Amino acid sequence: MPVKKPDYKKQLHAVIMAGGKGTRFWPLSREAFPKQFLRLIGERTLIQDTIHRLRGGIKPSNILVVTTKGQKDIVEWQLKELLGGVNCILEPEGKNTAPAVALAAFKLYKKSKDALMLILPSDHHIGDAGAFLSAVETAAAAARKGDIVTFGIKPSRPETGYGYIKTGKKLMAGVFSAARFIEKPDLKTAKTFLKDGSYYWNSGIFLFRVKDIIAELKRHMPELHQAFSEIARYLNTDKEEEALKEVYRKLKEESIDYGVMEKSERIAVVTADFKWSDIGSWSALDDVLDKNSEGNVLFGNVVEVGCKDSILFAGARLIAAIGLEDMVVVDTQDATLIVPKEKVQQVKELVGRLKKEGKEEYLAPKVEERPWGHFSVLEKGLQYKIKHICLKPKARLSLQMHAHRSEHWIVVSGVAKVHRGEEEFIVNKNESTFIPASTKHRLENPGLIPLKIIEIQSGEHLGEDDITRFEDSYGRC
Amino acid sequence: MPVKKPDYKKQLHAVIMAGGKGTRFWPLSREAFPKQFLRLIGERTLIQDTIHRLRGGIKPSNILVVTTKGQKDIVEWQLKELLGGVNCILEPEGKNTAPAVALAAFKLYKKSKDALMLILPSDHHIGDAGAFLSAVETAAAAARKGDIVTFGIKPSRPETGYGYIKTGKKLMAGVFSAARFIEKPDLKTAKTFLKDGSYYWNSGIFLFRVKDIIAELKRHMPELHQAFSEIARYLNTDKEEEALKEVYRKLKEESIDYGVMEKSERIAVVTADFKWSDIGSWSALDDVLDKNSEGNVLFGNVVEVGCKDSILFAGARLIAAIGLEDMVVVDTQDATLIVPKEKVQQVKELVGRLKKEGKEEYLAPKVEERPWGHFSVLEKGLQYKIKHICLKPKARLSLQMHAHRSEHWIVVSGVAKVHRGEEEFIVNKNESTFIPASTKHRLENPGLIPLKIIEIQSGEHLGEDDITRFEDSYGRC
Repeated sequence: MPVKKPDYKKQLHAVIMAGGKGTRFWPLSREAFPKQFLRLIGERTLIQDTIHRLRGGIKPSNILVVTTKGQKDIVEWQLKELLGGVNCILEPEGKNTAPAVALAAFKLYKKSKDALMLILPSDHHIGDAGAFLSAVETAAAAARKGDIVTFGIKPSRPETGYGYIKTGKKLMAGVFSAARFIEKPDLKTAKTFLKDGSYYWNSGIFLFRVKDIIAELKRHMPELHQAFSEIARYLNTDKEEEALKEVYRKLKEESIDYGVMEKSERIAVVTADFKWSDIGSWSALDDVLDKNSEGNVLFGNVVEVGCKDSILFAGARLIAAIGLEDMVVVDTQDATLIVPKEKVQQVKELVGRLKKEGKEEYLAPKVEERPWGHFSVLEKGLQYKIKHICLKPKARLSLQMHAHRSEHWIVVSGVAKVHRGEEEFIVNKNESTFIPASTKHRLENPGLIPLKIIEIQSGEHLGEDDITRFEDSYGRC
Repeated sequence: MPVKKPDYKKQLHAVIMAGGKGTRFWPLSREAFPKQFLRLIGERTLIQDTIHRLRGGIKPSNILVVTTKGQKDIVEWQLKELLGGVNCILEPEGKNTAPAVALAAFKLYKKSKDALMLILPSDHHIGDAGAFLSAVETAAAAARKGDIVTFGIKPSRPETGYGYIKTGKKLMAGVFSAARFIEKPDLKTAKTFLKDGSYYWNSGIFLFRVKDIIAELKRHMPELHQAFSEIARYLNTDKEEEALKEVYRKLKEESIDYGVMEKSERIAVVTADFKWSDIGSWSALDDVLDKNSEGNVLFGNVVEVGCKDSILFAGARLIAAIGLEDMVVVDTQDATLIVPKEKVQQVKELVGRLKKEGKEEYLAPKVEERPWGHFSVLEKGLQYKIKHICLKPKARLSLQMHAHRSEHWIVVSGVAKVHRGEEEFIVNKNESTFIPASTKHRLENPGLIPLKIIEIQSGEHLGEDDITRFEDSYGRC
């Protein structure tokens, strides 16, 4: 059956908000590797899921991802296959959602004032893509009439972790005016909301026309509107980056919820009834993952005896748990988190403690993405460092040299082409070679499958700073 | 001040029981690497502490360690420095304490019927070595009169995890007859014991003359006595090993407590008042390690927020704990245990579960001792394995060959002499070399400092079984 494409579809854009600091899902998420890039549910990462559920609803070329330069590589690595090319909108730095929405709106406005923008967080879970797309259609109909539409989710429990929207009068089928926004309520209030039936969870998903949100920004966030108006002529040109840098330095952090939604008089609510979670903390996995008969969510290499209602999230290392109740355990290669469910909000505090105690290494990601592939550090010793390196087919590292370390490469799979001094030779699987310090070298994958090597660095100084690049395929010289 | 050496000192022997399966301290202890070899308290391992506190009380040459062949290397590695040479009594297999005591007694008997044997577990904690040695002196005086002496510890709390001895009439200063042995009591009973004042913890430490314990074995464990009598002529000869193998196959597992102590009418109790713990489980660390102001015992790389009365035991990896109360977390390189204090006894059950689920790799020790030094596995991949290998000065591995794997050696410190096929060459620090599959090779440390290398094995089959040895300095061909 061919996908039905109403006329407005060419105007409908999705703007995926992929900023995020990745604090609450530590130790799995790290700085520069926040929650949306994690494979928490099923085979896709959260941002991949976000894109995937737009299939048949929004053209890939109309999907825009707002992110920062530091995370662009990861976004492209995760979405290239799903989208073909990835349209990124780059913020110089994250300043919460209002500047991100404004930037996307001003950029789109230059192409079409009537463009429709669906604003989507990149790290939420939605259980039913069909119901979601049908709510998008309803919202688009309301937005085309000038409504600033927010998506309200029918609550399934008296949740105290979400904000609520009270609906007012009915505007059209499935669309109501917004009577009031309510911050996270206490349990008693949440229970009355659930019973009342006119309160919905505020999902942080919005849909509006570009010209309408710009009008509302002008009204409710005049400084922000002014800042973007002044540089509007540079947007979508090669001066955009420089202009934005200047603007962003002065911008305040502000959410679009607080800045516009809670103030505007044009808000409509599309009420939706699908499984939804903002996966706001480790304990939220309870809502989206399957539990065993004892109420445990088990993931990875876990052995447990007598645990109940606990989330045990492991990787390759073993988590052995006895008699835990309502606990969360998250294991990664270099750190393990143990916290009762009711205290998961304190992960933020713990991350602060790590900074204070000089343990920043646990805030950086273990797997580091590079244009040519990725690597992870397996082990650090006093005078050695072991990395697992994966080069994409046809990729190559820069022609480089290290003053203080020798490098030893063992090919684990694939085939390597090695340039060492004046030599050039092939190293096959299960063979190795050795690059002395102060020798120009380059590693290349001439093959059609990924090249995996183990690299052992050995020397007195092993910092990433000891590198001289002579030539680079990715412009890093 | 010179150490006072009464005449009986040359008769006084210490017999250290170093069998043990190492289940209860998993994941830090492993099969073949039980609790006594762990550095749980201070800088020495428990067995090193056990030996160390005998200083000035018992001559090093009168200290005997009962262990098995499989653990002899570790015993020697840990005790060589403390003792000079280590006198090991090797059991073919562990059969609990009664056979171990009998074996030591029958062996000593051939040298001197009047020898005094102090039986010591290798994995207990004693807070005050001076008080302990003075109790030994008292016990020796009683034993020289024919008493079978057990050490009773004055209880400091109504502990339900220990057995008790009720003392009867006073025999001499600090020595009483034993009225009754009591198995682990319930809390109510333990409280009455504490109040009563005549009940002492049964420490599992004993002292008796060789001829007296043999007489009691004859009386209360006639089968065991008979078995050793029959092979007595082979003891202390080169036929001992073979004879013991035959005997041990048929022996039942039995403790000396149950087999002799609880039945004999010659039992005396030396009452002692020093800090003592059998460190029977992870939660027992509470009794022997310092706590912070919140009652936490913290060890290694730990960051915590709001934890109380918990034991957080880490190595180099990070343990991050929030809001834990009365919990135990133990982290090792390949596995993490999380268990409430009140459930630590279930670690045994968990170890059983690991076996059942085919996760035996977590029962083997990570650091493996070898006659030439030690190694540990840093990382296992599908077709590679990375080891950190340390060779003692002048040590060398066997001349060997692997059919299915190539090996890559990187020298991290020290200097290596490599035999590869017909070649022989030196590999210096920060250099590497490569041994193709099916090539005879040998690694040697010609230097005066330890040789540390990183070995990467790469191939289709990476088991320790793929080895052909042609020559070995340690008789392993």
